[in-house]
Amino acid sequence: MRSGVIMAGGPGMRLWPLSRASRPKQLLQVGDGRSLLALAYDRLAGVLDPTSIFVCTLDSHRDAVLAALPELPPENVIGEPTGRDTALANGLCAAVLGAVDPDAVLAVVTADHVIKPIGAFQDALRCAFELAESAPRLVTFGIVPTSAHTGLGYVERGAPIDGSAYDVASFTEKPDAATAATYLASGRYFWNSGMFVWQASTVLDQLRRHRPDLAGGLERIAAARAGPDRTRVQAAVYPELPRISIDYAVLEPAARERADAVAVVPLAVDWLDVGSWSALATTLPSDEHGNALGSLTVLVDSADNVIVTDDPQHLVAALGLRETIVVATKDVTMICPLADAERVKALAAATRLAHGERFT
Amino acid sequence: MRSGVIMAGGPGMRLWPLSRASRPKQLLQVGDGRSLLALAYDRLAGVLDPTSIFVCTLDSHRDAVLAALPELPPENVIGEPTGRDTALANGLCAAVLGAVDPDAVLAVVTADHVIKPIGAFQDALRCAFELAESAPRLVTFGIVPTSAHTGLGYVERGAPIDGSAYDVASFTEKPDAATAATYLASGRYFWNSGMFVWQASTVLDQLRRHRPDLAGGLERIAAARAGPDRTRVQAAVYPELPRISIDYAVLEPAARERADAVAVVPLAVDWLDVGSWSALATTLPSDEHGNALGSLTVLVDSADNVIVTDDPQHLVAALGLRETIVVATKDVTMICPLADAERVKALAAATRLAHGERFT
Repeated sequence: MRSGVIMAGGPGMRLWPLSRASRPKQLLQVGDGRSLLALAYDRLAGVLDPTSIFVCTLDSHRDAVLAALPELPPENVIGEPTGRDTALANGLCAAVLGAVDPDAVLAVVTADHVIKPIGAFQDALRCAFELAESAPRLVTFGIVPTSAHTGLGYVERGAPIDGSAYDVASFTEKPDAATAATYLASGRYFWNSGMFVWQASTVLDQLRRHRPDLAGGLERIAAARAGPDRTRVQAAVYPELPRISIDYAVLEPAARERADAVAVVPLAVDWLDVGSWSALATTLPSDEHGNALGSLTVLVDSADNVIVTDDPQHLVAALGLRETIVVATKDVTMICPLADAERVKALAAATRLAHGERFT
Repeated sequence: MRSGVIMAGGPGMRLWPLSRASRPKQLLQVGDGRSLLALAYDRLAGVLDPTSIFVCTLDSHRDAVLAALPELPPENVIGEPTGRDTALANGLCAAVLGAVDPDAVLAVVTADHVIKPIGAFQDALRCAFELAESAPRLVTFGIVPTSAHTGLGYVERGAPIDGSAYDVASFTEKPDAATAATYLASGRYFWNSGMFVWQASTVLDQLRRHRPDLAGGLERIAAARAGPDRTRVQAAVYPELPRISIDYAVLEPAARERADAVAVVPLAVDWLDVGSWSALATTLPSDEHGNALGSLTVLVDSADNVIVTDDPQHLVAALGLRETIVVATKDVTMICPLADAERVKALAAATRLAHGERFT
């Protein structure tokens, strides 16, 4: 049976202080009031039966996830005791769902991006399910690139499978600018979306083949009865297992081994990472002076700022402010130049160093 | 009998959003944790009996004043229904205290400045009381100038009265830079402090002489019995009376009329107007990067800022911030360049225009 799993893991500290260890970025509401998690759910809900949609998250985020997504049945949360990268999270989902349904086919999607239009995503998702069901393939989604981005991984296409997909020839991690430019010009590369479709048995077979250490741990977890038993086994096994991405652990070695082991479905969509304040700003309403406003504001001689609060009744008043990020929450006010948006994570880390977990 | 009256009137919107219409700047705590009002009280308490110290403020600020200054007996608040400049406020205090004690001698002091050392102020205060008691003089305090400030009024000294005071030859409102420079060089000019000592009967006589309209209104108020009767009369009379400063209404015409009508006691003190964020910053603790900090903070690559909160538990975290004022209160966050400190009032006005009294 077809299932979907939304990965809602990391804290996303580049969106601090709105995102916290206890309130990950996927639960933040973006421009139109739906959280990234809810938007990811909406995308799947058009293709899958709602009872087949799961969320994989930290045990500590379970309550927050259920509060942000009341549509989700509580038993559809797949919990991790701690985050140990994507190989383990993907393996866990396959092991847990495969234990219930040996024929399970999983779409594993992220909640870190705004994707438009939703219809194009859903068409690609249906195509990917068919490809994964018709053969023991690992199917990935490749975003059709619109720039020579050096901060993303790239997927090189190989032979066409049918009109709408290709074998994967190779994966490349973040290339330098010159390489990225040749990739873009060639028309043969896609951005690696981090979203996949596969049979549970296919990805578990590949894990057993390439990472028997991970596969062994996952088998012990899946063998325990769902509920407190499994939680206990998982808590004991997790810390022993290595941190590694699913790309390194499975997709890259599989693609190297056999030309038809991995397929890519092109996805021609607006694919916006809203993982930083400068990126999130593009989803917010803006005024005629280029201020992106997620807040009640009074602005005098102020332009090109990003201003966000967690309380719609809180006023941010600024005079002579330019290209600055201001985020006001109940217990923390954060300010930095827009050009330093990527360094907010460092500021959060400095705060954790000075004050422990109190403000982060 | 000698009395002291602290004027705690205007809202001080240059210190918005910490100061509000309902929480005037005199009630704000400065660097060492005492409010400006409390510091003014401390200065008087060394010279006067505490039961003889009064505060003149808006009726709407009565409760806030008593909360900020628990030492003050509630009956020692002289309330105004609305602020109508200093001639009326000074006249009211003289009329009210003179009605109880016809021999009352009043020191009328402001709470808008930090004055150091306190001993020099108290010596001058004792000297001024003696001058006011020995003749029907209007005694003013003249700050010994340390710069050719163009934002202040100046007092020109005339003949010496004794070793420590002078008749006043003339008053000049804010002079231009060239004039201020000649004033400073001459050694004959003081900054007008806005603080005075006089017999209640002396200032009321002068008001009757130069502003019979004001004097008549004040007599009607003082004739009513203290309490609800007087409050009712005052509410009816106040709106009819003109707005004018005590300098224009009384001191300047009196000094023009008679050379010995007004005396000036020199005051050689550090006299710091803390009426703006840039000025208040000088009273706050600072770190090694020139940040003035009235707040819990985590600062990375940030220098020469002024950061203030009204909640000692609220964190302000900044990265790459330079020469900026950040004031975070429960319902308003205010940000502007330090160079624009004088324009905070305009930002508060823009906020009032947009949101009524809600945030101001």
